[in-house]
Amino acid sequence: MSSRGVRHDSMRARNLAVVLDAIHRTGPHTRAALAERTGLTKTTVSSLVADLLEAGVVSERGAVRGGERGRPGVAVSLSGQRVATLGLEVNIDYLAACVVDLTRAVRLRRTRPADNRNSDPAEILGLLRALARETIEAAEAGGLRVMGAALAVPGTVEDGVLRSAPHLGWRDVRVADLAGDLPLAIDNEANLAALGELWFGSREADFLYVSGEIGIGAGLVVGGALFRGTYGLAGELGHVVVVPDGPACRCGGRGCLEVYAGQDALLGPLESVTALVERLEAGEPRALEACARAGHALGVALTSAVHLLDPGRIVLGGVFAPLFPWLDAPVKDGLGARLGQMRGAPPPLVVSGIGADAAVLGAAGLVIQRILADPAQALGL
Amino acid sequence: MSSRGVRHDSMRARNLAVVLDAIHRTGPHTRAALAERTGLTKTTVSSLVADLLEAGVVSERGAVRGGERGRPGVAVSLSGQRVATLGLEVNIDYLAACVVDLTRAVRLRRTRPADNRNSDPAEILGLLRALARETIEAAEAGGLRVMGAALAVPGTVEDGVLRSAPHLGWRDVRVADLAGDLPLAIDNEANLAALGELWFGSREADFLYVSGEIGIGAGLVVGGALFRGTYGLAGELGHVVVVPDGPACRCGGRGCLEVYAGQDALLGPLESVTALVERLEAGEPRALEACARAGHALGVALTSAVHLLDPGRIVLGGVFAPLFPWLDAPVKDGLGARLGQMRGAPPPLVVSGIGADAAVLGAAGLVIQRILADPAQALGL
Repeated sequence: MSSRGVRHDSMRARNLAVVLDAIHRTGPHTRAALAERTGLTKTTVSSLVADLLEAGVVSERGAVRGGERGRPGVAVSLSGQRVATLGLEVNIDYLAACVVDLTRAVRLRRTRPADNRNSDPAEILGLLRALARETIEAAEAGGLRVMGAALAVPGTVEDGVLRSAPHLGWRDVRVADLAGDLPLAIDNEANLAALGELWFGSREADFLYVSGEIGIGAGLVVGGALFRGTYGLAGELGHVVVVPDGPACRCGGRGCLEVYAGQDALLGPLESVTALVERLEAGEPRALEACARAGHALGVALTSAVHLLDPGRIVLGGVFAPLFPWLDAPVKDGLGARLGQMRGAPPPLVVSGIGADAAVLGAAGLVIQRILADPAQALGL
Repeated sequence: MSSRGVRHDSMRARNLAVVLDAIHRTGPHTRAALAERTGLTKTTVSSLVADLLEAGVVSERGAVRGGERGRPGVAVSLSGQRVATLGLEVNIDYLAACVVDLTRAVRLRRTRPADNRNSDPAEILGLLRALARETIEAAEAGGLRVMGAALAVPGTVEDGVLRSAPHLGWRDVRVADLAGDLPLAIDNEANLAALGELWFGSREADFLYVSGEIGIGAGLVVGGALFRGTYGLAGELGHVVVVPDGPACRCGGRGCLEVYAGQDALLGPLESVTALVERLEAGEPRALEACARAGHALGVALTSAVHLLDPGRIVLGGVFAPLFPWLDAPVKDGLGARLGQMRGAPPPLVVSGIGADAAVLGAAGLVIQRILADPAQALGL
């Protein structure tokens, strides 16, 4: 419930958002069809569409330039030609940036391998700032205008401050001016990876995205919206208790999922997920056993998560994606045995198709979402 | 995002809701103050308030009847004199009904002890229908008009159908015309008990309400709104896994919280919670041990729930309320040991003050909420 009534002077901003929403979700549409869908008059729709055209937010398909405004048969669609946003990510072993246009087409992607464990925030953020600057310049050289940015971090975020990223060794880092004067949002990587899956992956509206990295996080999407909890700390799947008196976890608890299924537990002495996959393909018993143990623990933790969160499906991402062929059966068996009776069938278990880019894409997509939700505010229309 | 633009003819319904929301949340207010808060003109506010007065939704405090409309100093507040709603509950050992007025004052409460285990739905619903009719008649004799009803059930609800209530032995029961021609909503008892806690209990906006009964359910409230998950099945705390290879649970899983902390596990051979409390007060070792075991299991399951749901606080209700003095320490110890490092402090653990009435009050409150959100629609204004 908005606390403000609708006055004539705020109607235009609201109606701009309503028209753009109709174009975005179900378009392209003619102006007449837009009027019918939104309940607005054709005159109002034509005036709003003219403003959106002027701002480069929409374009006319098959439009006859110089023809009559609102001419029937001319369809209005979202334009990818001008407005764009910047996604940024600092993770444990890389920095990344991407540019996404208003139609959510990915226009640029850059990744810099790095070793950010126990690093100096000022130094790493300096490198990220340079990467952001160079990415924005490349986008603008291609005719795009970058209107905002968002940053994904492997840690907890509160009130725009990175509270704790244990693997980076960062605490209470306030991130500012990474992208010059552009407004900058900051969020947890599992949350943004879930949004990446929503907008750039399967595009299902209801799922739990499980981000397997050195830590394990999750992001729940319900009806196309991310569930964040009270303080933005929801989805810490890695610390769901699997065995109450199990081995100590770095969080201070015992027997957490991360102890059994985090990247370090999966790899053991191996150096990379690629090396693990090679061993698995060769049928090496120790590798198979590590995956079976991780899959069993994931089945237990996801059972608790399904009972509490009620996701539409479960999407395994991060390092769990290349390991999916070996995790699939033990996780499904666990979910089926424990959930079958109460829910009929457990939620479908699938693998993410967008790999390691999920979080940085979700970051750019978050800013697109904000522009689409309130174009008048975001673009100064 | 509404899919409809704002036209002049729908502005009135919306503005009625905005004005009523301001009166309800922060009132009483004079008409001038309402205009300032809502951004509407004084003329518009006066016209809307006149309609709300006519419908008996608001009243004027200190008003001089026959005085000038919109006279400064005359405050408008929500009226409990006319509009009311009916809450109904079918639970394992009782039927209940209550009537709540628009100010959320409880006007009538009726409870009928019953043994509904493995019962015939048609028979029990017949008894509930009679209870509803007699409660509505009593309310109307007192000058109230009952405008809608909602029913709390100890089971899962999908699309208005009671899918499964294992302790009642009911499956796929479609509940209709319980309250004559009144619109009837139906929801899970833990969800409605959480809303009861929100509106009639502590009135905090962020908490996980834990409903300890023969089954254990939970309802998460974030920012004053209930989180339901994808299919309305979220919050099944009773089947969070505490010990992966623990004893079989009636759900088909193993080592669920309910096995350790459900009413049957707590009571053992005892007949009632009252009997258990007597033993606990006398310091009987077996009773103390049952509570310690339940408290330990609750600490483990709630750790997983806090990591996934991020609640603002945890409220123990149902049979956990009278047992709180014995559950408090083991639950807090478990949460503190496991959560302390990652979250600074675990969420506060408190006891519910509204007891067994939480769900039936929440049911009546749900209908009040719908009236306040759209008075034009709900009351035909």
